[in-house]
Formats: sequence, structure tokens, C-alpha cells
Amino acid sequence: MEHLIDVANGRAAADLLLKGGRMANVLTGEVYPANAAVAGEWIAGVGLEYTEGREMLDLSGLILCPGLINGHLHLESSLLTPAEYARLALAHGTTTVILDPHEIANVLGTPGVQALIEASESLPLDFFFMAPSCVPATPLETAGAILSSREVQKLLEHERVLGLGEMMNFPGVLGKDPEVLSKIAAARWKKKPIDGHAPLLSGKGLNAYLGSGIESDHECTKREEAEEKLRLGMWLMIREGSAAKNIKDLLPAVTPRNSGRCLLVLDDLEAGDLLQNGELDHAVRMATSLGLNPLTALQMATINPANRFGLKDRGCIAPGKRADLIALPDLNEFQAVLTVKNGKVAAREGKAYPVHHASFGSHVLRSVKVNSLAASSFHLPLKAERAWVMEIVPDQIITRKVSRPVKKDPTGMVVSDVEEDILKLAVIERHKASGNIGLGLVQGFGLKAGALAGSVAHDSHNVIVVGVNDQEMRHAVEEIVKMQGGFVAVQGGNVRASLPLPIAGLMSLDPAEVVASQMEKIKEAARDLGCPLANPFLTLSFLALPVIPELKLTDKGLVDVSQFRIIPLDA
Amino acid sequence: MEHLIDVANGRAAADLLLKGGRMANVLTGEVYPANAAVAGEWIAGVGLEYTEGREMLDLSGLILCPGLINGHLHLESSLLTPAEYARLALAHGTTTVILDPHEIANVLGTPGVQALIEASESLPLDFFFMAPSCVPATPLETAGAILSSREVQKLLEHERVLGLGEMMNFPGVLGKDPEVLSKIAAARWKKKPIDGHAPLLSGKGLNAYLGSGIESDHECTKREEAEEKLRLGMWLMIREGSAAKNIKDLLPAVTPRNSGRCLLVLDDLEAGDLLQNGELDHAVRMATSLGLNPLTALQMATINPANRFGLKDRGCIAPGKRADLIALPDLNEFQAVLTVKNGKVAAREGKAYPVHHASFGSHVLRSVKVNSLAASSFHLPLKAERAWVMEIVPDQIITRKVSRPVKKDPTGMVVSDVEEDILKLAVIERHKASGNIGLGLVQGFGLKAGALAGSVAHDSHNVIVVGVNDQEMRHAVEEIVKMQGGFVAVQGGNVRASLPLPIAGLMSLDPAEVVASQMEKIKEAARDLGCPLANPFLTLSFLALPVIPELKLTDKGLVDVSQFRIIPLDA
Repeated sequence: MEHLIDVANGRAAADLLLKGGRMANVLTGEVYPANAAVAGEWIAGVGLEYTEGREMLDLSGLILCPGLINGHLHLESSLLTPAEYARLALAHGTTTVILDPHEIANVLGTPGVQALIEASESLPLDFFFMAPSCVPATPLETAGAILSSREVQKLLEHERVLGLGEMMNFPGVLGKDPEVLSKIAAARWKKKPIDGHAPLLSGKGLNAYLGSGIESDHECTKREEAEEKLRLGMWLMIREGSAAKNIKDLLPAVTPRNSGRCLLVLDDLEAGDLLQNGELDHAVRMATSLGLNPLTALQMATINPANRFGLKDRGCIAPGKRADLIALPDLNEFQAVLTVKNGKVAAREGKAYPVHHASFGSHVLRSVKVNSLAASSFHLPLKAERAWVMEIVPDQIITRKVSRPVKKDPTGMVVSDVEEDILKLAVIERHKASGNIGLGLVQGFGLKAGALAGSVAHDSHNVIVVGVNDQEMRHAVEEIVKMQGGFVAVQGGNVRASLPLPIAGLMSLDPAEVVASQMEKIKEAARDLGCPLANPFLTLSFLALPVIPELKLTDKGLVDVSQFRIIPLDA
Repeated sequence: MEHLIDVANGRAAADLLLKGGRMANVLTGEVYPANAAVAGEWIAGVGLEYTEGREMLDLSGLILCPGLINGHLHLESSLLTPAEYARLALAHGTTTVILDPHEIANVLGTPGVQALIEASESLPLDFFFMAPSCVPATPLETAGAILSSREVQKLLEHERVLGLGEMMNFPGVLGKDPEVLSKIAAARWKKKPIDGHAPLLSGKGLNAYLGSGIESDHECTKREEAEEKLRLGMWLMIREGSAAKNIKDLLPAVTPRNSGRCLLVLDDLEAGDLLQNGELDHAVRMATSLGLNPLTALQMATINPANRFGLKDRGCIAPGKRADLIALPDLNEFQAVLTVKNGKVAAREGKAYPVHHASFGSHVLRSVKVNSLAASSFHLPLKAERAWVMEIVPDQIITRKVSRPVKKDPTGMVVSDVEEDILKLAVIERHKASGNIGLGLVQGFGLKAGALAGSVAHDSHNVIVVGVNDQEMRHAVEEIVKMQGGFVAVQGGNVRASLPLPIAGLMSLDPAEVVASQMEKIKEAARDLGCPLANPFLTLSFLALPVIPELKLTDKGLVDVSQFRIIPLDA
């Protein structure tokens, strides 16, 4: 602090002076000429009176903005390590990301969260965490871990764990489930933020949900929904990620009076989108292009998330704040040409300096434990001639529950019916090698040959496989086990394409460019095998999520979501 | 929480339903019809869907607003106990007050702060505290206590101590005084708010001051000053109290973009003003009458202070927030006709229900310790024929340092010169009965007879007395000691009027009405004795404050403020 005071007071030269540019002041909504004097990791002085620095950067023609703060992200969806994500996000002007690591928590529990906390230490991008609140998502599946309220409480003690992650279990809140309320109470007690997740919840139910202490929502899809939630005190996180894109529908709800309660977030971002479109800067551009005032958009990506998460040391350019700064030629185009993090240049012209990659322990890298499979593992006996089948709705994560006649082999076992596009689907428990296998049927995958499998299967992330026969399916699963996680497309005993995800079976150790290219290749392989879906592995990964209607499959069996219970296959 | 969820969810009736009114939503800046359902101390539900309550209040024709939050007050200036202040403030719609108890801390140290914390417990108004940062104000005077950084750190652990109080010692910050920086660091470490006090500080000095972690200012008097401070990240507390009135000058600095960073505060409020004009509602009315949007003014007295001080449980009307609510017929006139605090009606039609008055310990009630005075105690020998005299500037707290010829008695001692209005002034140390007496001369009091004395004398609160001769002065001081603090006007061996302030010599145990009437009477007595000043005891109380130019008197002697040292009387 002494050095900072000396620099600010003009008794010492700045370590770094950013001069000659204009500054976007997100506190007052103004843009005006100002230099910024940096002392160590901190902004010491802001104003034209600062003219000396041991290192100087000329910002003529540029606008200096605070580094972006991404308030809600599931890193796992990018398939990237924290270091790799940081490298790309920094190049796009993001200097702080708040993760809800609930995918890895479903696989490895607290040690999984710890692994991401450790892997994100000393990176030139600050990762904060929210303690996952809903692990496992339901009792209808076998997850790798259970995060009890005690464990949530312990996680909340970590200085980089800011609060409680999205509370998806709104029936649990409304039903006053003691474990659910204990988790909320733990965060309230520490005065830490509590994120929500309440699609379409409204009226009395929404009041009750909020009354428990939940403060934000990133699941709004309609203007009226957003308006009601803002009025009732929620922070509105407007999401624009790889899957859900809500900016266009929600911007009409944003007014000059309430914009301070709005954030831009990504929720889920794939490596390919990160490479091609950018990180939070993409959402800022999108909002601005749809007519939002660019300074308001900038506030929604800087000071507003800082306020929402109580990050008092960042979010604006002012003395005493962290020197997290970006410079860009134009607020509307919003393409960062310089990123400074903690007073050090972290990226220039869209390229970040190399970052240190952490290594992961064997408990993280050896997480796929499956009982050895037999020929009979995929045998599916059925008394009836018709079965309940999951019908895929293209580009959506819901399925329809439909009754279909099934094809059987001479021994009476149900087999994949390629003609009718009714294929066998299996979910194999992979955390404890319990031998649990759920078997079902799915319509819409379109495979004419081979099998597709993956170890990303929300939320428990068991191994999920779809294929034209038992042998191909077994082969696909064995390849997943061999890779210790990933996606694979097999055909006739050969691996057509694969994407290894050895970190908890969820994330790659490779650079984003490799991951994106592997993803393209495996999608192509699926297309070659007959699959018409745009994103077959994404579709596959949601077929195991028993909180999304109408019919899903877990390692425990077929789940009728509306009844919230396991049902027999016989229709 | 369970009951709240049941009420919100419609499974149980509200304990209290406020219905039929419109609601001012400070989160979205809207006013619309809404009912509020209260469960216990909390708001459970907001919306027209709530129609049942075990108790119902009809708000037809009224607007429901959040209870007001006064973000900066020195309670001691009101001369009232917390309970008495609460009674009146509640009647005016204030439900939360944040105190900087630095007057009582100068007298009694931490036990003084503790006494106010205890006396404000279980009142139907929430008092929070800021740990006083500058006790004593200077080394040029004897205070009753020193609050070291260690003690500040301990105070910060109390749950009702929100942060560090106004850091007046900006030279100490800029000079990197280790004790000053330790106090700031203690609050930063706990991520607690740090209030500032930096009149006219600007440019590099201001940057350095803020770089240390200081976050707010309530000393702005000019638009440009406010604008610079807002740009550099300060919370702007716009003050409208009994002494300083800044709304008119500062409103032009408030814009729709920056108003979220602005608060209305009082700083100092006298009992008479509280009775006559109100509390923070007066500032809201004043701001609105000067053209500020009434909803913006309301935000500056509710959600903005809640945000600034991290009071997540209040400041707006939403499920899960404290049921601190007021109702009024008109946002412009802003006269509360109902105050609900923690779900209970606390005031109606400008009258609060009786509140519980705490008792105070003897260390608080017996704080005036003065060595017995002799006839010679006030003897003022002087070699020269001219002396440095404090010249009063009416209605201001500065004095001018002037050289004047003095009147002496036959033994060569300086005596009060009533003809020339050059009167003797004494400051008698009263914390440790050390016998310290500072003697000086003041021009502008105008007394023709008698003496005025008080135990309120900023910031150390020694006994200060001015009079036409030593005998009257001694009598006045003895009366102060007899009352254990207060104000007194004496003449010819009689007490003309008095106002006892037995709580640390600073505050009364009487109702506000009594205090205001005693204040009127004692001012009248001073006028009768010849004093032309509007507020003689206020003027007197600032003659001992050695941080305000130009010449002041402490128990250690005459202080030349520009030199910041004790000087001899001889001119």
C-alpha cells in the first residue's frame, strides 16, 4: 500500500503508465481522456496529472476499460483446463471468471472442485468459484459424489469460493427440504452470494424461492419473466452462451433504471465458440448490436458483476482497484487489443502470453471406473411388443415420451431397429464400477452403423452410448474407458474419431485449437454414420438428465420426468 | 425461514398484510400497485396475489416505500440517547441509522462505543456503527482515550460495527502513518466499508487517499469536487444536517448514470431540527424540492446506502428482505404516516410507539473529572502588551488569528476586556483530572456579564468556558462538573440556564422536547448576557478543535493550526 500511495501522490514513478487514451468510466457512465498509473498489481492514480512511468504504453486512439468479469460459467462445457480457458479469455479482455464447477463435482465431489481451484491458482486470470448446490441433481441416478450441506459449508470457507452456486432444486426450496435450506443458510450466514436457477418460476412460487435468500437468475427466456424477477429483487444474468442465447429476448426488459441489476453471462461456452467468437466480449458486442447503450453493456460485464459478487477490488478503473484493464479502439466493435491483468500485460492484439499449466492428480485423471462388460451387458428383454421410447426434438434438450413397436431378436431381446431409427441407448455407471446399466430406446439419432459414446452425460456424467448393435456399443464404451473419458465414434471394430477428456472424464488436456478440431472430426464421423443432428454428443449428453422432460435414461433406468420416477420400458 | 416460505407460497396466511396501496420499487424505479405479505420480521411475498393476513393494513391512497437508511450520523450532536433518537426517527420513516460514535470515543474510548452499542440494542430501529478512526484527532490536546489500530480491529469484529469511520487524518494517509494504514488495513482485511472525510482534497492527493482503500466522502461542498470524487470511485454522501447543508450545491453533480453511487446523509442533527424538520425524510424532501426525481431521492436514502454498507437484508421491498416499510400519501411531500420495522408497526401519523430506554453505567454517567479549581487557576500572565486572539467568524467554525492589545489587572494578569469584546477563554482537561488548563482570548462572543461553559468541545470534549471574569468562569466550570457535563450560562453566582448532558458529558437522558426547550432557554440566557451569536454553544464547542484554521485553544495551550503546534500567547 505504501508504494501505491507514493505513486498516486507523485512521489514515485508508476510501474506502468497507460497514457494518451480515453477512459470508459463505468461508475459515472462517461468517456473522457485520462491516464492510468499502475503500482504493482494496483491502479494507483487516474487522471491526466499522471505522466511518468517506468514502463509506458501509448493508448492514443484507444479506450481504456475495466477488465471483463464473467459472472457465471460452467468451465467443463468448454472441455478446457482453467489455464487454457484463461489464455483465450484474456485475449478477449476477460480478467475474472466465476465458475460453478458442478459437473466435476458430480464426478469427484469436493476433491474435484479442489482440483479446479488448484489448477486455476496463480493464473493471469482470476477464477472464483460458487459451491455447487445440487450434487447429485436427483436421487434417480448414481453420481460420483454427494455434496452435503456440511461439504458446501466447508467449501464456502475457501477465499476463492464466493458463494452458493445455482440452486436448481426449486421444488426442494418450496418444499423446505432441510438439506437444501441448510446449504442456503450456510451462505446467508457468511453473507455470501447465492445464485438461482428458476426457469419460468413466477408468482407465489418465485416469491417463496427468493424469500429463502436466493438472489439471481440466469434462466430467463422471456421479457415478462425477466421483469418480474427484477421487480422481486433478483439480479438478472442475461445469458448468451453456446447453448442458450437470451440477449435478444431479454434486452427489452433492461431500462436505465434497472440496468445496474443486470449482468451478461455465458453459462456454457464451447471451445470452438470461444476460439471463433470470443468470450464475454461476444455478449457485449451482441447486446450493443441489438441497441443497448455500449456503456451500459460494458457495465453489465464489469461493475455490475463486481457489485453482485461483492468483488470490491475490481470492476472499475479507480485508485486502489486491481489493475485489470483492457484497451480497444471502439466501444461498439469491442475488440480488445490489450489486456492488462494485475498490472502486467497479459494479451496483445488478441493473443495472450503463454500461461502456466497445472498438472492434475491421478484421482482426477483416472475417474472412469466401469465393470468389465460382457456380451450380455446390453441384453434388453421385454415382455410387451411396444416400448416407451425417447424421441429427440432437434436442437432442444427435451425429449418426447412416445410408444413404439420394437424389434426383437430370435431370443426375444430388443435390438436396435435401424430402419425405424429406434436405437438402443445405455447409461453405464462409471464412478464406482457398480455394474449399473440403464437400457432404453431412442428415436432420432439416425445412425445406420456404429456407435457413439461419451463420458459427459448430465448431471451425473456416467458413460452414455447409442449404437446399432450391442457389439458396437460395447466397443464404444471400452474406448471411453481406455481414454479415461471423452467422446468416441466407432464402427466395425475401428475408432472413427475420438476426443479424449481425461480430466474427470469431462475436460481435455489439449489446447483449444486441438479440442475444437477433434470436435469437428468426431461430429463429421457421426454424420458419416448417419446421424443428422447438428451436435450429436451434446444431444447425447442431455439424454441422461432426469430433470428435463419428458423421458430420460439414467444408470438406474428409464425416468418419466413428469412422474419423477423410474418406469418400466414396456408400453 | 420455513414460515416465510409457507407464507410466500400461499400455504400460510401472512402475519401482516399491507394491501391496497402502490409500491415504490427502488430496484427498478417503478411505482405500481402491490401488496406486501409479512412473515415474522421479514417480507415474504410482494404482489397482488397476496390477499390474506392475520392482521391487515389498508394502504389505499398510500405509497409503500422501504424504510429509510441514514448512512452517516454522529448521534452525539443530537444530544439524545439512541432510544430517544430512534423514537423520533421512526416517526419520520427511518428504520436504520449508521453511527460514527467518535465523540463518545474521544471521551471514553472503546467502552464509550460499547455503551452506545448496548444502549441501542433491541430498539425498534437498527443502529449500526463505524469504528472511529481518528481518536484523538491530534496530539495537541488531551482526549479521554486513544483508539489504537488494535482497538479498532477489535471493534470491527462486532457484528453491528460495519466498518471504519470517517478517516479525517488525510495527512496521515498521504504520509503513510503506520497506525493510520493499520486501521485501514484492518477494515480492508475484513472487506468492510471504509468511510472518508476529505474536504477539497483533489488530484494526486485524492488518488493517494483513495488508493489506500477509503471509499466515501461526505464533505463535498462543490459540484466539481463531487464530480471528481465520483469519477475516482467514491460513494458521494450528500449531507443535509443541522450544520452543513450541501444538497443544493451538489445536486447538479448527480446524473441518472451515477446516482446509484450517491447517498443522502445528515452527519450532525440537533434535537430541535429533528423535532421540527424530521430526519432523513427532510433531506429527501429537500432534494426533491430542488428538482431531483423523487424515486432517485428515495433510492439515495434506501437501496444506495444498503448497497454502500453491504446491508443485504434491507433497502428495498422484496421477498426475503427485512420488513422495514413506510407508507406515505405522496412521494414529493414525503411525510410518512406509517412505519413498520421488522414486521411490527413502529409509528403512525408521525408518532412512534414508546421504546425501551436503556440505562447507562457509572463510567458513562460520571465522566467529568476536573481538579478542584483555585482562584489562580485562570490567572493569565503575559509579558507583552499584545496577544494572539481568536476572532470568531459568525456562522462558521473557522477563527481568524489576530493580534490585539490586552487589558491587564494591577498584578499584571490579563483579564477579559468587555469594552473591546476580548474575553478570556479556558479549556480544562476533564478526563483524568490532570489539572491541565489552556488559557486564551477570544473576540466576538460579546458577553457583557457572566460566563458560558460546556463539556462538548470537539474533538476531545474537555470543558470549555468563556466569561467576563475568572470568578464567573470558575463558577460555570463547577456547574458543569456538578451536572457531570452539559451546557451552562451563569451570572453573579446564579445559574441562568443549563442543559445537563450526563452521558459522557455529551448527551442528555431527557426527551428531545425537553432538550430542545433547554437549548432554547440557554441560548436566550446567552443572548441576555450580551452574546450576539446564533448558536453560542456550538461556536464554543468548535473553539477547541485544532484541525480547523486558524487559531484554536486546547487544554495544552494555544494552537496555531497552520503551523500545527502550540504557540505562546504573546504577539
